[in-house]
Amino acid sequence: MADTDFDVLVLGAGSGGYACALRAAQLGLRVGLVEKDRLGGTCLHIGCIPTKALLHAAEVADSAREAGQFGVRASFEGIDMPGVLAYQDGVVNRLFKGLTGLVRSRGITVIEGAGRLTGPREVTVDGTAYTGRSVVLATGSYSRTLPGLEIDGERVITSEHALRLDHVPSSVVVLGGGVIGCEFASVWRSFGAEVTIVEALPRLIAGEDAASSAALERAFRKRGITSRTGTPFSEAKVTDHGVVVTLEGGETIEAELLLVAVGRGPRTADLGYEEQGIAMERGFVLADDRGRTNLEGVYAVGDIVPGLQLAHRGFAHGILVAEQIAGLDPRPVPDSGIPRVTYTHPEVASVGLTEAAAIEAYGAEAVQTVTYDLGGNGKSQILRTQGFVKLVAQVDGPVVGLHLVGDRVGELIGEAQLIYNWEGHADDVAPLLHAHPTQNEALGEAHLALAGKALHAHG
Amino acid sequence: MADTDFDVLVLGAGSGGYACALRAAQLGLRVGLVEKDRLGGTCLHIGCIPTKALLHAAEVADSAREAGQFGVRASFEGIDMPGVLAYQDGVVNRLFKGLTGLVRSRGITVIEGAGRLTGPREVTVDGTAYTGRSVVLATGSYSRTLPGLEIDGERVITSEHALRLDHVPSSVVVLGGGVIGCEFASVWRSFGAEVTIVEALPRLIAGEDAASSAALERAFRKRGITSRTGTPFSEAKVTDHGVVVTLEGGETIEAELLLVAVGRGPRTADLGYEEQGIAMERGFVLADDRGRTNLEGVYAVGDIVPGLQLAHRGFAHGILVAEQIAGLDPRPVPDSGIPRVTYTHPEVASVGLTEAAAIEAYGAEAVQTVTYDLGGNGKSQILRTQGFVKLVAQVDGPVVGLHLVGDRVGELIGEAQLIYNWEGHADDVAPLLHAHPTQNEALGEAHLALAGKALHAHG
Repeated sequence: MADTDFDVLVLGAGSGGYACALRAAQLGLRVGLVEKDRLGGTCLHIGCIPTKALLHAAEVADSAREAGQFGVRASFEGIDMPGVLAYQDGVVNRLFKGLTGLVRSRGITVIEGAGRLTGPREVTVDGTAYTGRSVVLATGSYSRTLPGLEIDGERVITSEHALRLDHVPSSVVVLGGGVIGCEFASVWRSFGAEVTIVEALPRLIAGEDAASSAALERAFRKRGITSRTGTPFSEAKVTDHGVVVTLEGGETIEAELLLVAVGRGPRTADLGYEEQGIAMERGFVLADDRGRTNLEGVYAVGDIVPGLQLAHRGFAHGILVAEQIAGLDPRPVPDSGIPRVTYTHPEVASVGLTEAAAIEAYGAEAVQTVTYDLGGNGKSQILRTQGFVKLVAQVDGPVVGLHLVGDRVGELIGEAQLIYNWEGHADDVAPLLHAHPTQNEALGEAHLALAGKALHAHG
Repeated sequence: MADTDFDVLVLGAGSGGYACALRAAQLGLRVGLVEKDRLGGTCLHIGCIPTKALLHAAEVADSAREAGQFGVRASFEGIDMPGVLAYQDGVVNRLFKGLTGLVRSRGITVIEGAGRLTGPREVTVDGTAYTGRSVVLATGSYSRTLPGLEIDGERVITSEHALRLDHVPSSVVVLGGGVIGCEFASVWRSFGAEVTIVEALPRLIAGEDAASSAALERAFRKRGITSRTGTPFSEAKVTDHGVVVTLEGGETIEAELLLVAVGRGPRTADLGYEEQGIAMERGFVLADDRGRTNLEGVYAVGDIVPGLQLAHRGFAHGILVAEQIAGLDPRPVPDSGIPRVTYTHPEVASVGLTEAAAIEAYGAEAVQTVTYDLGGNGKSQILRTQGFVKLVAQVDGPVVGLHLVGDRVGELIGEAQLIYNWEGHADDVAPLLHAHPTQNEALGEAHLALAGKALHAHG
C-alpha cells in the first residue's frame, strides 16, 4: 500500500470526520484524515466549545452580580474580554492537544491542506492525490448570511467574529432567533450589552416546543433582552458609529453591532462533489441511514447531510460510517433521538417530538402531556431558576418528547434521551428514585404525574 | 367514621410520612398526619434543603473568588451570614408553603403535637387518641453524638446548629467524614474557614467507591481542607476561646468550633414502639420490603428503617406503603437502586455497587471497570472541574455500579440510576447520543469505552 493510499480517507477533521477516523483506526483500518485548518473543526475552534466557554463566563458574571441574593458579598466590576478570550483559548487548546494526541496515538495519518474530491475515491491536496478504498465527506458547515447583507467582520459579523471580539459591545442587534442567535444574545446581555433579537418566524428557537419558546422569550424579557419575533429583516447600513437595521415595514434599530445568525449552510461548494456525480440537494449531500451517498464507497457525515446540525450528531455519524466500512452492522442514528440543548440563561433542552409534532403524528386524542413546574423542585428553588419539565406521551404508550427549560437543565437531557430512546413509559420511570434535592428529580416528578401519581404537584 | 379515626394514620410528617399521606389521600383514603414540629421534617427544615442552600451560597462565593480565571472582573468581599440565612429561609419557606398547600388540597387532616403509639393502631396526641386502620411510623432521625461528648450548641454543635450560625467560624474541626461532615467542611472552606476533618475510618465518605473517596480527599487537600482519616477521636474540651479536640494518641487540634457529624440515629425512643411490641434492632424498626412491621397494619418508612438515610428513600417508602395499604401491588424499593449524592465541591454521586462490593458479589474475574477522566470532557473543562465517571460492570453483563466525581455531577445520577435500574449493558447506552458539550456526555463516553469503542479516550 502506497503511503497515499488508505482504507479510509476522510475529508474534514471536524466532529464527524475525526470521530470516523478514530473509530476506523480502532477497528484496524488505515486512515488518512485531510484538514485544511485545525483538527477539531468548527465545534472545537469556533463553535460549541468556545461559545459554551463564553456562556460560562456569562454565568460567572451573573453569579457575581446576583451574589447578594445568596448572602455572598461580592461585586461585579465588568468583563475583561482579553481575559475571557484567554480562558476560552485555554479550554480549546487543552482539548485540541488531547485530540491531537489521540489522533496520533491511533496511528492516523493527518494530511494538512485543502482537499478536493478529484475522483470517486480520490482526494487531492496541494497537488498530491490520495486514495481511499472508502472516502468519507465531512466538510461541515459555515455561517450563512442573507442576500444583500455583507459581512464586514467589524459592524456586521458572524458568530466566528463574535467569538473573538475584544470588547463588550454597548448594543447589538442579533439577526436570527435560533440557537446560535439566542446564545449570543444571552452572553452579551450577561456581559452588560443592550440586546435586540430580530426573527422573522413567530417565535424564538422555533424548532423547539412552543412552550419552551414562550418560556425563553419570557425569561429573556425579564432580563431586558428584546425579542422582535415575526419581524422580517429588510436591510442593514453601516454608519460611522455602528449599524442601522431596517425591519420590514420601515422601522429602524441602531446598534453598535449586527450579529448575523441566520443558520449554517453545508460547506460543499467547489470541492468537486458535483463533478464526481454525488447526489445533492440545496447544497447538502444526500446519504442514507448508513451514511452512504449514491457513489459506491463514498460516505457523508455531519452537517453536510440534511438534518440537525449538531456536533454529537456528527460524532455518531462518524462512528456509524466507520463501523459500516469495517463490515459491522451498526444501528442507524435517527435525528429524532438526538438531544438538543440551547445553552442560554435559562437553558432549553429537548429530545423527541414537540407536542405539535406528536399531535400531527398520532392525532390529538392519542397524545397526552404533563408539565411539571420547577417551582416545586427544591434544587431549582435553591438555584433561583424557573422553568419546567414537559412530557409528551402517547396515551397508554411511551414518552415521545421531553422538553425542559431552566438553568442547568441541559444536563438532564442525558436521562431524557435514555427515556426516549429506550421507549420508556411513565410507569417505567415513575417508581425509580431520583436523588433529593436535584433538578433531575423534576423528571421523576413529571413521570409520577404522567403515571397519575403526582407527588410534589397539585393534581 | 369519627373525626379521630382514619384509614391511614401517619406518625411524622417528614419526607416518608408526608409522601405516604399525599399518596394515600390521592388513592381516596382518609388520612391523619401527626407532626410535633413543621410539615416537611428534617429534610426540608434542618437537612437537605437548607444544607444545599448553604452549599449553593458556597458555590457563589467560590465563583466570585475565582471570577478572574474566566475573564470576569469581580471581587469577593466576604460572607454575610444573616443574608445567607435569609436566602436559606426563603427557599425553605417557599417549599414549606407549597407543601402545606398540597397537604391541605388533598384533604389530609394534620394533627399538630407530639404523638405516641398507645395501641397497635392508636396514636395519642395531647391526650386525644387517634386511630387508623393502618398506622405508618415515620418518625425520622436525629444527629448522633459520641459517648462523653456533650453537644452544647455553641462550641460543640450538630448540623442543626451549624445551619443557624450567625457568623463564619475562623476554624472548625469536623468530627466525622461522612456525607454531612464533608458537606459542611466544603461550605465552611468556601466561606473562608480553616477546616480539619477527623474520621476514624480509613477514608472519607467510606460508603462510596474507594476511587471516589480518594478523589474527594485530593480535591479537599487542594482546597486546603485537612482530612485526618484513620484517626479516632478521643475527647473534646471547651475553652474560653473555642474547643480543644484530642485525638487517640494524644495529639490535639484547637478550633473555634467542633461539628459533631457522626451519623444519624433513628428517632424511635419513648414513642411507645417497644411497649406495643414492635420488632426493633439497635433502635431501628424492622420492616419487610413492603414496609410492614411485625404488627398487622403497622408500617414503617424512612430513616427509622435500617438502610440508607435519604429523603428520596423516605419518599419512595411512603408511596410504596400508601399503595400497599390501598391494595395495589407496588414494586419494592431496594436500597441498591437508590442514587446517592454528596453535594461537596466537587460533588460525588453514585448508584449501585462499588467495585469492592461487585467483586465480593461476583468474583474479581467477573467484574470489569472503566474510568473516564473528566479531563477529556469539554463541559467539565469549561467549568474547570476535575473528576471521573467510573463504571463497574459484570463481564458481558449489565452495569452494576456508577460512580461520579466532579462539580455538578450530582445531576448526572438521574441517568445513571436509570441505567442501573433498567439493567443497562454498555451496548445499550453506547450507541445513544449525549449532547455536546455536556457533562453527561462523559457517561456516554464511559459506556463507549466499556463497549470497546472509546471515542474521546486513549485506549
